[in-house]
Parts: sequence; C-alpha cells; structure tokens
Amino acid sequence: MPETKDCIFCKIIAGEIPSKIVFQDELLIAIEDINPTAPVHILIIPRKHIASLNEVNNSHSEILSHIQIQAAQIAREMKIDQEGYRLLNNCGEWGGQTVMHLHYHLLGGREMTWPAG
Amino acid sequence: MPETKDCIFCKIIAGEIPSKIVFQDELLIAIEDINPTAPVHILIIPRKHIASLNEVNNSHSEILSHIQIQAAQIAREMKIDQEGYRLLNNCGEWGGQTVMHLHYHLLGGREMTWPAG
Repeated sequence: MPETKDCIFCKIIAGEIPSKIVFQDELLIAIEDINPTAPVHILIIPRKHIASLNEVNNSHSEILSHIQIQAAQIAREMKIDQEGYRLLNNCGEWGGQTVMHLHYHLLGGREMTWPAG
Repeated sequence: MPETKDCIFCKIIAGEIPSKIVFQDELLIAIEDINPTAPVHILIIPRKHIASLNEVNNSHSEILSHIQIQAAQIAREMKIDQEGYRLLNNCGEWGGQTVMHLHYHLLGGREMTWPAG
C-alpha cells in the first residue's frame, strides 16, 4: 500500500504504477523519467514520503547522503561518469517541482548547457 | 593555507581569495556566485577538497547530507523557500563543472525553466 495516498511516487514505490526501475534498495528507488530531457534521465526517489527539500531535517541525513552517493554509482553503471552529468533537485513551483515527493534528477549522456534552466 | 594548492575554492576557504560569504560552519562554506544566473545564486562548498561527485563515498556522508539540509536552510533565510528553488551539482565536463572542487548551486528568486540545461 502506498505510504501516502494519491502520491504518484508512493504508488510507484508500492508497485501500483509500473516504472522502469534501474536501482532500488531499502532507502530509495531509481527509475527512468517518462519524459526524459537527456539520453540518461533517472529519478532518484526516497521510499519515505518527504514532500520536498523544504521539509528535510537531520532525521533525513542518511537518505540525503545516500541519494548523492548512489547517484554517482548509477552514473558509473550507466557509463556517464567520465563525460560528466548533472544531479539536481527542484523544490516548489519556481524550482519546477511537479511531484510533491522529494526526488533528484540525474541527467547525462549529452553535454548539459548553462544556465541550468 | 589552502588544503589543495591551485584550487580556487580551497583558496576562498582559506581566505586567500575574497568572496561574499552567506553562511559557514565547520563543514562547509556558502558564497555568492560571481556570475549569477538567478537573483539568488549561492555556491555551497565543502571545506574538504573533494574533486567531484565522482569521488564521493560513504566517508563523505555527513558532508553530503549537511549540504542538502543547509541549502534548504539558506533558502529559508533568503526567503526563496515558498516560491521554490533549484539545487544542483555539475559533475565533470558534460555536467558543466568548471571548478574541480565539489560544489552545489542553489538557484532561486525567479522561476526556473525546464529542461535544466
């Protein structure tokens, strides 16, 4: 059962909505973005429902560091680590956050431009 | 003395190059970007010299989670938390990393666009 009703990411984590999972462990799930903006576009999502970066506190430390370290590991496995990649979090409306469940975008496989949106 | 010779961020951390510091503690320093791409454009930089996200491992967990949590705190202090913001790491050439000392960009004060570069 999803942790939070009506949260699409909680439903994906609960297996109620299909997704292309590229990695999962006890803390997070990593899936392909359904609207990719780069050849590699992975969403890294904590299993725990945290609405956004605005809600994080020290109790989430393990999740937050694990996301960063695992993003780098997925980049190695996807063979985008040598050319490089971008890892980002959108928080709130002006940040471009469209699902209110914390997630980081891992983007690579092409040269990213600047500014970053 | 800078931790790593010829690293501009190590020199900033050592006080050898001036910067506009918005926050600092024992683990990190946050400064204004000298070429801002948004009304709020802060660089969050660990004091420890880590070249990039490619180099992180479990020994950096405290630094990595602290960067995320402190970014959210700086966003609150800069009053960009309610509208929203973007937090990102550029890794390597295709990611757009220009200084080989790990740092995260906190971007806000305007609506960020998509894709993120």
